[in-house]
Amino acid sequence: MAKKIEILDSTLRDGSQGEGISYSVQDKIHIVQALDELGIKYIEAGNPGSNPKDMEFFQKARELKLSTSKIVAFGSTRRKDIACSEDSNLQSLLSAETEYVVIFGKTWDFQATEILHATLEENLDMIRDTCAYLKKQGRNVIFDAEHFFTGYSANADYAMKALQAAVDGGASVLSLCETKGGCMLDDCARITRAVTERFADKVTVGIHTHNDSGLAVANSLVAVQNGATHVQGVLLGFGERTGNANLSTIISDLQLKMDCECIPPENLKSLTPICKRVAEITNITLELGMPYVGQNAFAHKAGMHIDAVLKNPVAYEHISPEDVGNERVFLMSEVAGRSMIIEKIRKFDFSITKSSPVVAEIVNEVKELEHQGYQFEGADGSFELLVRKAIGKYQPFFNLHYYKTSNEKPLMEENLYSLAQLKIDVEGNIQVAAGEGNGPVNALDNALRQALQSFYPSVRQIHLTDYKVRVLDGKSATASRVRVLIESSDGTDSWTTIGVSSDLVEASWLALVDSFEYKLIKDIEKKYQRFI
Amino acid sequence: MAKKIEILDSTLRDGSQGEGISYSVQDKIHIVQALDELGIKYIEAGNPGSNPKDMEFFQKARELKLSTSKIVAFGSTRRKDIACSEDSNLQSLLSAETEYVVIFGKTWDFQATEILHATLEENLDMIRDTCAYLKKQGRNVIFDAEHFFTGYSANADYAMKALQAAVDGGASVLSLCETKGGCMLDDCARITRAVTERFADKVTVGIHTHNDSGLAVANSLVAVQNGATHVQGVLLGFGERTGNANLSTIISDLQLKMDCECIPPENLKSLTPICKRVAEITNITLELGMPYVGQNAFAHKAGMHIDAVLKNPVAYEHISPEDVGNERVFLMSEVAGRSMIIEKIRKFDFSITKSSPVVAEIVNEVKELEHQGYQFEGADGSFELLVRKAIGKYQPFFNLHYYKTSNEKPLMEENLYSLAQLKIDVEGNIQVAAGEGNGPVNALDNALRQALQSFYPSVRQIHLTDYKVRVLDGKSATASRVRVLIESSDGTDSWTTIGVSSDLVEASWLALVDSFEYKLIKDIEKKYQRFI
Repeated sequence: MAKKIEILDSTLRDGSQGEGISYSVQDKIHIVQALDELGIKYIEAGNPGSNPKDMEFFQKARELKLSTSKIVAFGSTRRKDIACSEDSNLQSLLSAETEYVVIFGKTWDFQATEILHATLEENLDMIRDTCAYLKKQGRNVIFDAEHFFTGYSANADYAMKALQAAVDGGASVLSLCETKGGCMLDDCARITRAVTERFADKVTVGIHTHNDSGLAVANSLVAVQNGATHVQGVLLGFGERTGNANLSTIISDLQLKMDCECIPPENLKSLTPICKRVAEITNITLELGMPYVGQNAFAHKAGMHIDAVLKNPVAYEHISPEDVGNERVFLMSEVAGRSMIIEKIRKFDFSITKSSPVVAEIVNEVKELEHQGYQFEGADGSFELLVRKAIGKYQPFFNLHYYKTSNEKPLMEENLYSLAQLKIDVEGNIQVAAGEGNGPVNALDNALRQALQSFYPSVRQIHLTDYKVRVLDGKSATASRVRVLIESSDGTDSWTTIGVSSDLVEASWLALVDSFEYKLIKDIEKKYQRFI
Repeated sequence: MAKKIEILDSTLRDGSQGEGISYSVQDKIHIVQALDELGIKYIEAGNPGSNPKDMEFFQKARELKLSTSKIVAFGSTRRKDIACSEDSNLQSLLSAETEYVVIFGKTWDFQATEILHATLEENLDMIRDTCAYLKKQGRNVIFDAEHFFTGYSANADYAMKALQAAVDGGASVLSLCETKGGCMLDDCARITRAVTERFADKVTVGIHTHNDSGLAVANSLVAVQNGATHVQGVLLGFGERTGNANLSTIISDLQLKMDCECIPPENLKSLTPICKRVAEITNITLELGMPYVGQNAFAHKAGMHIDAVLKNPVAYEHISPEDVGNERVFLMSEVAGRSMIIEKIRKFDFSITKSSPVVAEIVNEVKELEHQGYQFEGADGSFELLVRKAIGKYQPFFNLHYYKTSNEKPLMEENLYSLAQLKIDVEGNIQVAAGEGNGPVNALDNALRQALQSFYPSVRQIHLTDYKVRVLDGKSATASRVRVLIESSDGTDSWTTIGVSSDLVEASWLALVDSFEYKLIKDIEKKYQRFI
């Protein structure tokens, strides 16, 4: 039977220490719902004592109907010369009215004396008192043993006494925090084992790591192998400095490879979509290469690998992407074979086989374009248009008569460098339009939108969400070819398009036109779906 | 005494399998130089058999004067029914004329029979023959045992026979490849130990891991603990799927915490600047949270942490950031940042010390510019100009009255998209000039050259050798800020300059002006040298 491991997610507390991350109350609610759906046991949601704004969240959170998760408030041991009942931070913690609380305390003698300026005995009292007080108030107490690994290495006896104080006070979980993130695997194993041998029959022993040595995930697994049954981290691994332990990786490793159960097995298939949702709410890009859940976690580029994977996925995949709700992706590259192009074409036309003449045609065109500097691996939108053009499932939405952009310094107005003008026709209806921008591409984008919107109002929904420029051949410097990738979204879907030219404005124009056309085709398809 | 570990960096081979990564020959040369400076023993630089473009690189690489690194070409065992001397891939490999070669071969029985369609015996022959043939041609052979860990688990006896075949053929390194990236720590330890127990007295045993389970770094360390003395990876950890083992983390862990020597100890201080340079050449953003070398790796947020760190850095830091050439973010100007800046200033003015007010001034300006998106690691030319401006050793060579560029489609002539016009004065002498180009920056470059050459004829020697564009904030897409880096050469020296703006043309203009001014200052310095 699988070994049960409790997961505590700290996206909303330790994770929010990451640079540029800040959540509204509504964001927090959405993340709690996502983590609950995944089946995470504990959600550490904030520090009501140090962050009064969190109080609003805890109030709202009480109304949430969660199926699995328990919301946990976080705080520290009482201050040195004060009773728990007088400590305002502890009072805030209580007023969050959560069934579970996390209390962090010092277990490294140096930190007790040098940072808190308490005697070693005083610090133990603070831990014991605080746990006992909260227990008496009806809370379940998880004790975060800050700096435990450094503390144990400096003074093992004292670090153990600190844990004992928490147990004496009534803590039900001892979470060993690797606060500096510098611990090596063997030390993590040895120190965790020392704790589990002494305490695991009385309380749950947990692990909380940081990634400063690149070992946050590995140290968490090592702790589990040495008796820890509670793991703390952040679903996507962000956090202060190098980040917290990445729970999406840890849960997958433990559940798929180490015979543990962290979340209900049937929920693992939701892992990738939920990670995407959390990234979306956090307003960050989910790392493409993140293990298990990244967009490239099962992406194959080398032609040889692709052939092998098509023959038998076990050849180059450590698990089935579907097990974690992810999917296999084939990246286009010069060395990639014909078999993967067919795979993509068959999405639009099932009747096409390896020997259809159109396949050779598309393969040759892709090769020719790649030679010019195109790269379709990151440009699904443009690739679909290319296939559509080859198989006759395409019609242009407008014709360009001309465009013209200009750039000037001194500026015309503040932050206004560029003007654009263009003339197009849509089925014979001429439209001349203009746009301004802080660069020529921005101005051109505005002009094109202006020109098209009276014919195709949905172009207003298009937002360009990312814009990338790559110079292809540095040798001729400002006369080199450039590759532009544009990522667009209409709020529901997102797609990427590409343009290559020796002129940056022209390369951007090509990608822009593909983006607009791709959107308009998708709109027509959606309308059509309603009638069949 | 520290245990010696050989490092093989595969940024240019396995790393280039990462999505969106592609190197020009010039990029490859620059990366080789950076890795050599760091003291990396082997640089795996390409696969001449599968990628004919790599041949140009290997030819050029022969002329490089490297102080430490050996350039290594990569290829596979001979094909099934063919002699080594007839195998075109092996012939390409030989024609790269490197002292060392990496040969990968199958060690998993399934891959031999199902992917290569060879018998188990045939596959062993292919490995033995290929190693022996290359050895006879005077190459040192590193054998990459593909899928070794999966292979050993499926059929340990056969996997070991494959290694024995490589040793019999004369391979001097057996590199155990964890190709699927799914291996858990204990398996990695056990299997590596089985190999080192049998082979480590005859040949060097190495490790090559991928990050599919988030354990690439940990597995590399575990292998070293179990007798491996050769580690393969990619300096910044990118690569296919979830990436290769991150060498910047591994080198730091091994060298600072596990008493190993991977690179000369005095070079570790260059690790962060070299990682930044490699990221810049690759045209990617160095992950902020990357262990040891990321910009946030030693970022302290809370005032309490800052106070504690100021009292005693050991309170919240696992190592000294300076050990790896990184810096504390809140102290950036106080420690490494400031001393590096002083070092640079003293090139122009020996009288300047740490406490000179101009140092604080420059530090503040650098901070402000970095906040805007400037990055001076890769822009020595612009940095020198900034320092010169601050210490009063600068005078402008011209004043801009205006510039104006325009872009048109349909084209005026073939490949002519852009026109530029500008007006400058040189000490009151007005010059109006025009330029054409295949893009607005190219046109502007030509116009400026035109305008300056009658005053400063040596501007004709300037060639722009590289041009890079990075979009800094993808979220606002075509309205985002862009950073332009221009590399210039006059045939003798080369220098890099930078510009940042919300307008691409303006960002390019700023970098262009710095490039021209830098060259003109150098010319004056050289003339002056002749008279002293």
